[in-house]
Amino acid sequence: MGEFDLIDRFFKRPTRRNALGIGDDCALLSPAVGMQLAVSSDMLVEGRHFLPTIDPFRLGHKALAVNLSDLAACGAKPLAFTLALALPRAEEAWLEPFSRGLLALADAHDCELVGGDTTRGPLTICITVFGEVPQGQALLRSGARAGDDLYVSGTLGQARLALEVFRGTLSLPAEVFEAARVRMEQPTPRVALGMALRGIATSAIDISDGLLGDLGHILCLSSAGALIDTESAASLLSADTLDADRRLEYVLAGGDDYELAFTAPAAKREAVMSAAANSGTAVRRVGQIEAAHGIRLVDGTGRAIERRYASFDHFASP
Amino acid sequence: MGEFDLIDRFFKRPTRRNALGIGDDCALLSPAVGMQLAVSSDMLVEGRHFLPTIDPFRLGHKALAVNLSDLAACGAKPLAFTLALALPRAEEAWLEPFSRGLLALADAHDCELVGGDTTRGPLTICITVFGEVPQGQALLRSGARAGDDLYVSGTLGQARLALEVFRGTLSLPAEVFEAARVRMEQPTPRVALGMALRGIATSAIDISDGLLGDLGHILCLSSAGALIDTESAASLLSADTLDADRRLEYVLAGGDDYELAFTAPAAKREAVMSAAANSGTAVRRVGQIEAAHGIRLVDGTGRAIERRYASFDHFASP
Repeated sequence: MGEFDLIDRFFKRPTRRNALGIGDDCALLSPAVGMQLAVSSDMLVEGRHFLPTIDPFRLGHKALAVNLSDLAACGAKPLAFTLALALPRAEEAWLEPFSRGLLALADAHDCELVGGDTTRGPLTICITVFGEVPQGQALLRSGARAGDDLYVSGTLGQARLALEVFRGTLSLPAEVFEAARVRMEQPTPRVALGMALRGIATSAIDISDGLLGDLGHILCLSSAGALIDTESAASLLSADTLDADRRLEYVLAGGDDYELAFTAPAAKREAVMSAAANSGTAVRRVGQIEAAHGIRLVDGTGRAIERRYASFDHFASP
Repeated sequence: MGEFDLIDRFFKRPTRRNALGIGDDCALLSPAVGMQLAVSSDMLVEGRHFLPTIDPFRLGHKALAVNLSDLAACGAKPLAFTLALALPRAEEAWLEPFSRGLLALADAHDCELVGGDTTRGPLTICITVFGEVPQGQALLRSGARAGDDLYVSGTLGQARLALEVFRGTLSLPAEVFEAARVRMEQPTPRVALGMALRGIATSAIDISDGLLGDLGHILCLSSAGALIDTESAASLLSADTLDADRRLEYVLAGGDDYELAFTAPAAKREAVMSAAANSGTAVRRVGQIEAAHGIRLVDGTGRAIERRYASFDHFASP
């Protein structure tokens, strides 16, 4: 199977919004008038972002999901993506399920594969995703204000649970592990929630490196601090099998969650709950933005607790 | 040096057309009304697309150049790009010249780095580039018609000369090798020529896998064939040190050239020459499009010659 056969067999489909389709030097997109184009790139490397044991179907899903999650954090509607793929070899047994997982999620979000590149090399997947958002309505990291509520969507820490089982530091009942593994290998990008939060949320980010680390980016760009109610946050991970400390660690600094953290004025609580209901996504209020910089953790009674967690950094010293 | 320091130190610059700049979940682009956005992705893997011996400055240049070359082949004006980078380690001695080479070429084309991703992994560079072209004016692969002239820009085969020296199958005088090596490691994307050919060329492609292979894509999408005057083509490579057969092979199937192959009606010869002069790019007429499929090679007297060359394919069996 050659490079062009590979593209034809697994990735080529009838063209929709790309004026050209795969097969010219460039894809041509025609954004609608009044819309801004939101663009994000993520690269996934075997052994860093996924384990060699991952089902290729799930990997195809995950590779696009982590990119759609960036669009969600901007409140953008997915339009299209490019795929650059380095593969050790061209194997149908891998390409068929990978492309199926990728394109199933793409179809679910009406997001068209418009171009890309294939080459031989260590397994690496680089997707660049395009979405649209009405001019000036994108959710940014810089808009959080003191007094705003802090929310998180879905659940946190499940991907980390699965990772720790793979690492051998944790054992879980089979069905708990399987559920956690699906969350790690097939995260759900919160696209509908992000779009529903336009005009409501003052800031948003997707949580990929852990809540504390990613919230830190919002606080840095918003020149603010935050208080987190750890009791409320801990309820984002139902884990009868974990002690309280480890549960809180995985919630606050688990990694690979692809949930949204966002802020909204207290006056918008009903609007936030409507956005959550309309998008079919659970959201939980876990704290508040403060003027004083830094993140303060408090227990259910409001008493400060001391913990230090590392945010994930690909190049930090161990 | 952590992931965010690395981005701040080497890749962050004052924002121009990206509404957000590096540091939010997405970059936001606002294409002008009436413009289509041309998008292309290329991934470069160490050992496949560049040798470990390459100067990082030149590699930074090349990684963007091969993407700009795709915009050139569409006649698009560069606007912006994203960079996803997998690195074995974060070394200033590598990152500083790499980012300098990358951003020097970006500045020369007023093409802004608007986002991306950095991760640890085998050295891999994935760039997605964005350009704009007036609605309906993009140069496509599908527009070549029987009777059109066939042109090639610049020179062909120089990158292959340098590669063969690295492979040890060829030795060249030092200054000839150095010139060939610069062509391999710092190709010149023919952006100005591509833009100047809007409304003149009937089809275009950039030559990355060899003239015959890439011309084949034009012929396939245009349902046509071509005749190539091998004497005219061979003059694209001045190589006193090569025998005629090898010279022709490197011209027709050298690889890594990043020149444009394009077609235009015979009535547009003056317009083609003006476009070449105005963009400061040499172009040479090397053949003609024919109705009959396939590529016919002829010598200077019009007599058919028989040669078979392989086009580069990352997954073809050796």
